[in-house]
Amino acid sequence: MKKTMVKILEEVDLDQPIFIEALPGIGHVGKMAADHIIAELDAVKFAEIYSPSFPPQVMVNDEGIIDTMKNEFYYLKSAGEDKEDYILLVGNTQGLSPEGQYEVCGLILDLVEKHGVKEIYTLGCLATGQPVKKTKIFGAATDKKMAEKLKKYDVTMRSADGGIIGASGLLLGMGTLRNMSGACLMGETPGYFIDAEAAKAILNVLLAILKLDVDTEKLDERAEETKKMISKAQKMEQEMAERMTLKPGEEDLRYIG
Amino acid sequence: MKKTMVKILEEVDLDQPIFIEALPGIGHVGKMAADHIIAELDAVKFAEIYSPSFPPQVMVNDEGIIDTMKNEFYYLKSAGEDKEDYILLVGNTQGLSPEGQYEVCGLILDLVEKHGVKEIYTLGCLATGQPVKKTKIFGAATDKKMAEKLKKYDVTMRSADGGIIGASGLLLGMGTLRNMSGACLMGETPGYFIDAEAAKAILNVLLAILKLDVDTEKLDERAEETKKMISKAQKMEQEMAERMTLKPGEEDLRYIG
Amino acid sequence: MKKTMVKILEEVDLDQPIFIEALPGIGHVGKMAADHIIAELDAVKFAEIYSPSFPPQVMVNDEGIIDTMKNEFYYLKSAGEDKEDYILLVGNTQGLSPEGQYEVCGLILDLVEKHGVKEIYTLGCLATGQPVKKTKIFGAATDKKMAEKLKKYDVTMRSADGGIIGASGLLLGMGTLRNMSGACLMGETPGYFIDAEAAKAILNVLLAILKLDVDTEKLDERAEETKKMISKAQKMEQEMAERMTLKPGEEDLRYIG
Amino acid sequence: MKKTMVKILEEVDLDQPIFIEALPGIGHVGKMAADHIIAELDAVKFAEIYSPSFPPQVMVNDEGIIDTMKNEFYYLKSAGEDKEDYILLVGNTQGLSPEGQYEVCGLILDLVEKHGVKEIYTLGCLATGQPVKKTKIFGAATDKKMAEKLKKYDVTMRSADGGIIGASGLLLGMGTLRNMSGACLMGETPGYFIDAEAAKAILNVLLAILKLDVDTEKLDERAEETKKMISKAQKMEQEMAERMTLKPGEEDLRYIG
Repeated sequence: MKKTMVKILEEVDLDQPIFIEALPGIGHVGKMAADHIIAELDAVKFAEIYSPSFPPQVMVNDEGIIDTMKNEFYYLKSAGEDKEDYILLVGNTQGLSPEGQYEVCGLILDLVEKHGVKEIYTLGCLATGQPVKKTKIFGAATDKKMAEKLKKYDVTMRSADGGIIGASGLLLGMGTLRNMSGACLMGETPGYFIDAEAAKAILNVLLAILKLDVDTEKLDERAEETKKMISKAQKMEQEMAERMTLKPGEEDLRYIG
Repeated sequence: MKKTMVKILEEVDLDQPIFIEALPGIGHVGKMAADHIIAELDAVKFAEIYSPSFPPQVMVNDEGIIDTMKNEFYYLKSAGEDKEDYILLVGNTQGLSPEGQYEVCGLILDLVEKHGVKEIYTLGCLATGQPVKKTKIFGAATDKKMAEKLKKYDVTMRSADGGIIGASGLLLGMGTLRNMSGACLMGETPGYFIDAEAAKAILNVLLAILKLDVDTEKLDERAEETKKMISKAQKMEQEMAERMTLKPGEEDLRYIG
Repeated sequence: MKKTMVKILEEVDLDQPIFIEALPGIGHVGKMAADHIIAELDAVKFAEIYSPSFPPQVMVNDEGIIDTMKNEFYYLKSAGEDKEDYILLVGNTQGLSPEGQYEVCGLILDLVEKHGVKEIYTLGCLATGQPVKKTKIFGAATDKKMAEKLKKYDVTMRSADGGIIGASGLLLGMGTLRNMSGACLMGETPGYFIDAEAAKAILNVLLAILKLDVDTEKLDERAEETKKMISKAQKMEQEMAERMTLKPGEEDLRYIG
Repeated sequence: MKKTMVKILEEVDLDQPIFIEALPGIGHVGKMAADHIIAELDAVKFAEIYSPSFPPQVMVNDEGIIDTMKNEFYYLKSAGEDKEDYILLVGNTQGLSPEGQYEVCGLILDLVEKHGVKEIYTLGCLATGQPVKKTKIFGAATDKKMAEKLKKYDVTMRSADGGIIGASGLLLGMGTLRNMSGACLMGETPGYFIDAEAAKAILNVLLAILKLDVDTEKLDERAEETKKMISKAQKMEQEMAERMTLKPGEEDLRYIG
């Protein structure tokens, strides 16, 4: 496997779907929100991505069964108030290298462009390092029209104190080169733990924008499962990072294989 | 050399061989076990892999003779109780980068798939950082059927507290995309030293699963040789890691070349 | 996006233009000087570069609108005392990896060579780590004739205590292989802050060499804006660097996405 | 420039030349020895290598004139006692990444193989970190015959406590796949400074093996020049390493560009 591979599971016909990206990042706020929509609305998986820039590893679940590193596309047809189509992107990893991020995001955009996507929402969070009283949702947009739209949903436009690293930023930036409009929604979070509160806040804003109706009751329950999976993923990412930055005199005791 | 190179030494005809991977990792438990099987059963080397993602170096043996970095394939024909064929993969290194790991593992799977492999066992260890009384063998499987099989051999299924990094994990994960079934056997080890006890424990489980009969007496003796070779390899890997993470003000005094 | 992409915005016909490179680096001295020339002389953007070796991220401006990572080419026709043509290269990033730097610089040279460029000036600075009383301009040249020319403009030739890292060096070095002559102008700076004084000093020398006439009054004002943008960029570069060198036990709280 | 580039300066016809590699490494012992042979015997440069895996920078000399990063091939025809042909490889850098090292070394071997090379000597040093009374020359060989030959010249075969990292090792290892025989000669050095003593010791052994006669008087003088150039190169390599391992809160004050 020298190249990123897109595996189509179902040839699906979608009508200008809205694209929602929620790959794992800090707080895993976006992932929890998207996984919840997928589960509650029975979204259907139709494609997977495998990439040599994903971590060279597998995950192991509670029963000792392994799972490969991948990104997964789900669709919803004629959903919500406006009977819109949707594509949701989730997964257990992002590309490790800059080149890998660009390659994978390029292939993601190839796929969703083929299905007619014109609008992208990426989910992330803004780790403040401070305790959060009431989760604020911050936003960044590809254009002023989208920025105005976000403000209607109580999204605070993010001011000039940083940027958006990873797929949540790159998909929007590379999307503008394909005339896609989009926004990144970021749940405020202290950043230290799996943040179900921030997930709920971002989910509510997202559902309002997308005009989708989803019961949010089970989110807390799911957050528990997600926490387990995620703490495992983070542990492994750290192991990878460590392996790549071992210092003289340090022995790597975590290598398995 | 821009690409990984598979050098075929002998065109061999195998009948649905079982594939055992034992590339070097922490504790070198798997490597010791596989090297022992190869030596005791006179397995025949039939292919080698050289890769630009291996460390850019050579090893030097006791007599000052150099050895290139490589992975080596051995086969056994009509061996054991069931007169099965086997492919064993050993070597002195793994790929350094994620992309390199994916490329090399992809080529390994191409080769073994061509020979009809449907079942993979990868050998590794689980470094607990704690002294070990009696070596436990942990396992992870690609599917429930394989998990059930492992349990019959006193393998403890690994629960959700991590994953499997490197070739031992990746070969299983990428193997599932080719409909291969498999398992990773992990010997529990404190991780601080070349662990002949863990190697013996994993060897015994492996022999039982594979229905192979091998005298394990000479394993301790071989462990001594392996220790020497491995401590050399680890020293060099550390040197590489250091060279790639030199800090300001640190001078690299270990560079040879 | 697997390869660096050059996007031509306007097919322009230039007559042996002089090429000025001012991609961001420490002190952002060159960038400020070049941005000032572009603004005051109404230079026209005619091409952009996007690359998978740029940081995988987007920038967010004061209004929450995102901007992609890119390099931008501007031209000036029949400008200054000698009615010369000019190409100016600015942007918000450089390639992250050595390979990326070589690829992007090669494509930059392809583009400017096509327009007939024979002379290159790259702008940088020399961080001394010491307070600077009166900004000295240091220079390095591809040949003795260019070195003599620099001396006429009070440029101090840089002696043998270092080199020139990044695009400012590489464009000159790779340019010599295409028979381009050139120089790097480096403003002396303590290096700790956005240095408008050094930018003014380098701008004055550059204008004299290029025989361009530009009002430098608004430079200080612009420096303020640049400072904001740059401190954002530096923050993100640091985040990237951190993500790639995370240590065991450190949690990455800055990841957004 | 996406690929390593071999630039042929002179089409030369050589008769089974002996190949000597002396790219820069710690102590720069080999480089000093090879540069001395080139200067004293008027070796002729006939090829250069430029690579995107070299550091993305240029060097600046005493007069402020820049020099690109490159590897350089020189030849000697009918030299020494046996009227042999020789190829010498020197330069100011090696590839930075493993993949780059393999690519560049592969191209080097392509070139020298084309000229009929069957024998390779690579020059390096062994940094002991200890003061050295009388410089010992250590050796490693591709085969026993070569090892026997080395012993005749008072070379101590290196025992199993490490390996050979970088081009000095890789050229030998990759050379064996092309049926080339070879050895690495390593001058013992404390490693802290440019070691003219070790260079003289390695030069004397090399001249004896190659049956070349060269006045070694001017070596000390040349060592002075080399020291200057090298300390510059090391400073820059360190800068590169630092840029790639910046820590949170550390500002990079050395970036020029």
